[in-house]
Amino acid sequence: MESAGEDGRTGNWGRWGEDDERGTLNLITAEVRARAAAEVHSGRFVSLGLPVRPSPVLSGPFAPAEGELSPVRQTMVHTGVPAFADVISVTSHHPLMTHLDALSHQVLDGRVYPGRPAASAAGPAGVSHGSTTAFAAGIVTRGVLLDLAAEGPLPSGYSVTGADFDEAERRAGVRLEPGDALVVRLGWSMVPDPSRPMPGITADAVRWMHRRDVSLYAGDTGDAHPALDPAFPDPLHEIGLGRLGLPLVDGAELTELAAVCAELGRSGFLLAVAPPRIHGLTGVPVNPLAVF
Amino acid sequence: MESAGEDGRTGNWGRWGEDDERGTLNLITAEVRARAAAEVHSGRFVSLGLPVRPSPVLSGPFAPAEGELSPVRQTMVHTGVPAFADVISVTSHHPLMTHLDALSHQVLDGRVYPGRPAASAAGPAGVSHGSTTAFAAGIVTRGVLLDLAAEGPLPSGYSVTGADFDEAERRAGVRLEPGDALVVRLGWSMVPDPSRPMPGITADAVRWMHRRDVSLYAGDTGDAHPALDPAFPDPLHEIGLGRLGLPLVDGAELTELAAVCAELGRSGFLLAVAPPRIHGLTGVPVNPLAVF
Amino acid sequence: MESAGEDGRTGNWGRWGEDDERGTLNLITAEVRARAAAEVHSGRFVSLGLPVRPSPVLSGPFAPAEGELSPVRQTMVHTGVPAFADVISVTSHHPLMTHLDALSHQVLDGRVYPGRPAASAAGPAGVSHGSTTAFAAGIVTRGVLLDLAAEGPLPSGYSVTGADFDEAERRAGVRLEPGDALVVRLGWSMVPDPSRPMPGITADAVRWMHRRDVSLYAGDTGDAHPALDPAFPDPLHEIGLGRLGLPLVDGAELTELAAVCAELGRSGFLLAVAPPRIHGLTGVPVNPLAVF
Amino acid sequence: MESAGEDGRTGNWGRWGEDDERGTLNLITAEVRARAAAEVHSGRFVSLGLPVRPSPVLSGPFAPAEGELSPVRQTMVHTGVPAFADVISVTSHHPLMTHLDALSHQVLDGRVYPGRPAASAAGPAGVSHGSTTAFAAGIVTRGVLLDLAAEGPLPSGYSVTGADFDEAERRAGVRLEPGDALVVRLGWSMVPDPSRPMPGITADAVRWMHRRDVSLYAGDTGDAHPALDPAFPDPLHEIGLGRLGLPLVDGAELTELAAVCAELGRSGFLLAVAPPRIHGLTGVPVNPLAVF
Repeated sequence: MESAGEDGRTGNWGRWGEDDERGTLNLITAEVRARAAAEVHSGRFVSLGLPVRPSPVLSGPFAPAEGELSPVRQTMVHTGVPAFADVISVTSHHPLMTHLDALSHQVLDGRVYPGRPAASAAGPAGVSHGSTTAFAAGIVTRGVLLDLAAEGPLPSGYSVTGADFDEAERRAGVRLEPGDALVVRLGWSMVPDPSRPMPGITADAVRWMHRRDVSLYAGDTGDAHPALDPAFPDPLHEIGLGRLGLPLVDGAELTELAAVCAELGRSGFLLAVAPPRIHGLTGVPVNPLAVF
Repeated sequence: MESAGEDGRTGNWGRWGEDDERGTLNLITAEVRARAAAEVHSGRFVSLGLPVRPSPVLSGPFAPAEGELSPVRQTMVHTGVPAFADVISVTSHHPLMTHLDALSHQVLDGRVYPGRPAASAAGPAGVSHGSTTAFAAGIVTRGVLLDLAAEGPLPSGYSVTGADFDEAERRAGVRLEPGDALVVRLGWSMVPDPSRPMPGITADAVRWMHRRDVSLYAGDTGDAHPALDPAFPDPLHEIGLGRLGLPLVDGAELTELAAVCAELGRSGFLLAVAPPRIHGLTGVPVNPLAVF
Repeated sequence: MESAGEDGRTGNWGRWGEDDERGTLNLITAEVRARAAAEVHSGRFVSLGLPVRPSPVLSGPFAPAEGELSPVRQTMVHTGVPAFADVISVTSHHPLMTHLDALSHQVLDGRVYPGRPAASAAGPAGVSHGSTTAFAAGIVTRGVLLDLAAEGPLPSGYSVTGADFDEAERRAGVRLEPGDALVVRLGWSMVPDPSRPMPGITADAVRWMHRRDVSLYAGDTGDAHPALDPAFPDPLHEIGLGRLGLPLVDGAELTELAAVCAELGRSGFLLAVAPPRIHGLTGVPVNPLAVF
Repeated sequence: MESAGEDGRTGNWGRWGEDDERGTLNLITAEVRARAAAEVHSGRFVSLGLPVRPSPVLSGPFAPAEGELSPVRQTMVHTGVPAFADVISVTSHHPLMTHLDALSHQVLDGRVYPGRPAASAAGPAGVSHGSTTAFAAGIVTRGVLLDLAAEGPLPSGYSVTGADFDEAERRAGVRLEPGDALVVRLGWSMVPDPSRPMPGITADAVRWMHRRDVSLYAGDTGDAHPALDPAFPDPLHEIGLGRLGLPLVDGAELTELAAVCAELGRSGFLLAVAPPRIHGLTGVPVNPLAVF
């Protein structure tokens, strides 16, 4: 498996200009959106977000002294009026928080997509290039589920390649078109389990996404932890996010989606990805909806 | 204008049982969703979220010592690997943050919808009844824009009544059906300007929503601050959220939506409301999408 | 045991005026400080703070996903320069965080010391009366240890009375003078253990402090949880903090102090109480030092 | 001015072993503490902390929408009982927050005092070597004020050298002994003013501290921003904190201290430095007290 930097063919640096911040979202044309719209019939929908329970910031005499850690920490505030309100603190990049990675999340040899020096893209006060600003107004495209776990979760440590995607397409009778979002189910959680290494996406699979001009990746998992290949630990993040400018939905919940697709005998849907419209972040919690 | 408690006719307490946490979202049936689906043709979409720029938590030698206050505070974190990441703190109930109010946000005479004692619904450690859990998986319904500001922002201090909605329907040639989301544009921001009192929704207008069985309210503004009637300050929150169990999108950005509706000669669309799937909150940032 | 409100004799409301914010700290005169200074001989010192380990805000791929809850949450920040830095979030009112209660922490029948309506003293934006401002510049006085646990921790559920203090003074050959800080060791932690109710301070003991004009209370524990008398749950906070205006150090660590006092055959020391100089809080972490 | 790395003589790496985390605090012996104790006569004391007003996290309908930024952010919490409480977020390394730098705050060529690889000392989850743990139990030593601003603030851009300290000692008739804390007043705030460059400490002055075996530095300012010498920007932090292992109190408030020292005709005092006893941080807010 070669490193990201050694494979010029996999990159989109420069494809949409030196200042581009949208990466493969540029592939979502009016034609692609129309294809998405054509998938909508009943208005039935499925959430691709993992449910998250916040844990309280406050503890001690006024609240429980113990509790689960959570990517969301909640403080119930004193409002002084007959209303309950709260303030939350969120760790977006967390395996239990479905989130959308901004392009600048990934640094490669001191640079971020599409080749900008990292220090000029982000600093202690925030992100000025390649942030969530690029998709803050939302993303709508056609989503296609490739369910690699239809017969059960992939085996521990399994390496997902482009051939697996070809086979899944054939099995489902569907084909990803340029601009579509690839929704991949491996049947595993993103929370690492040291005793049972998870399967993961290989560089070969990312190159498949490149050839097909996928606009967005959403998976229950993606890069394996621990890495499939310690010498090249994060091909999806390094090549996909970093070289292709392919935004990633980490930690999607796909169990219900797979069941509904199977029930309806369909793989395609309109995918609405609308994180809170916050600019300037490295990533943001999101609750993608598949609408049928 | 009578108080919420004096008008038994306006309430939904008990309509869907003693333990209900979904309120008027119960009105969104498969039929309503099909009506929403029928609005989708091109996949064109508009965000109803206000863009928010975070301000840095860090200041001093490593970051600017001054900056704008924001409902979102961002901390760029030390990751120890070639990746940028951050943690955010969010004040959802903020006029600059488009957010969805949970039913327990409103307390009425010590009770929350549908009549539960407030102290048993929420406490220092979070919310157990009437929280964001009710809509964490997302909401999809038909949205209908009633643009009261088509000819310019409403006059300062204007009292919006049901008759204004009737008139807006007639003008647009549309009619809200049970389960639809009401999207109302007054042409004002939620940020109070002491020198120019904003217009607002009256109890009469909320009763109109009740008669029509509106499932969700989304407005650029709603209750006026300062109050139109100091003796009954928040009719939309008190009757709507508290008595009807009508979830409210506060601080929607409707300028672009109004322009697109005018361009297309339409008032209806599929409305996808998918906040981060976080349970147990009093409210949550949201970026509703209108899909055409 | 009578309620705080029924015992006019126990209160200091009005003793130092209607606007007073210092309470019994007014008792620390130049004479008292000179008495404290006279205790200093070797410069040996003991911390009365519980050691606290912060837990990380960040978790997930960049940091452990699990860990202990802590009153201090730490975020290591991206500084962009060769320096490590962090931002912390602190829950001061926590049994594992030694802290100093400000007078407005305690509300009695809608009022705070010395009789001001609670809503005019504190609101959602902070505290304007009776906050940490009163002692932000620090406190120096003579501290006297009354070690009720010299023979081992007090029995479970034991009610500490003024007689216990008299007896401890006699045993130690010391006498608290007006303006001294009372340092009390019960031999228990403030973390409640449902299976073994902790001992606690009674209203009788608080009245002893009043008679003696104690300026500050510091204890390993104080009010028992669960309450000794459910009908009057927090005599130290209600009478002491609320009626007397007696600032409380909650959760002091007194094991080492007791050992050093025993070793030196002394009960008195200069007590330096210097929390971070932050105004406007309801309480603040503190690390009191006993200097010999 | 040479770089820190080129001047082997200025360093303490190895002086107290490979695993040392206390640096020059090792110099504070029982003899030094006794010298401190001998300075205590009246119990009069002065705070060396800058007063800080917190700004509210909450804004919007429940609190003011605008306010000053502050290193301390306060959230008033819903306690559900008659008590006011809050949670604070603190940026310790801030020019408006008097704080104590831990040794690992400074990274030099990838290493922290006393030569440990930075990545093994601190990471996303916190600090394991050279943190605030080293002085969490407090510091007591003799402090000596060298008031370089007795005749008014130092000139803009002035370079403070060892000769200035010699001269200040002579003028005050005092001499720093090994283990003493050096308290230096330049008469400037740490908040940079682009129009008027502040004065600062030079490498020569830091070497003076080394020769005298100073245990702790506390200054109203220290390293100048902008740097006196852009090629060697932070001599106090790089040589002092990084090479000598000299803990720094940044942002001390010394106006009152200078006045009291002048009034009493003294330069020495017992210095009690007792930050909240929080382990594992890169720095911590502190309110040092000078006791006379």
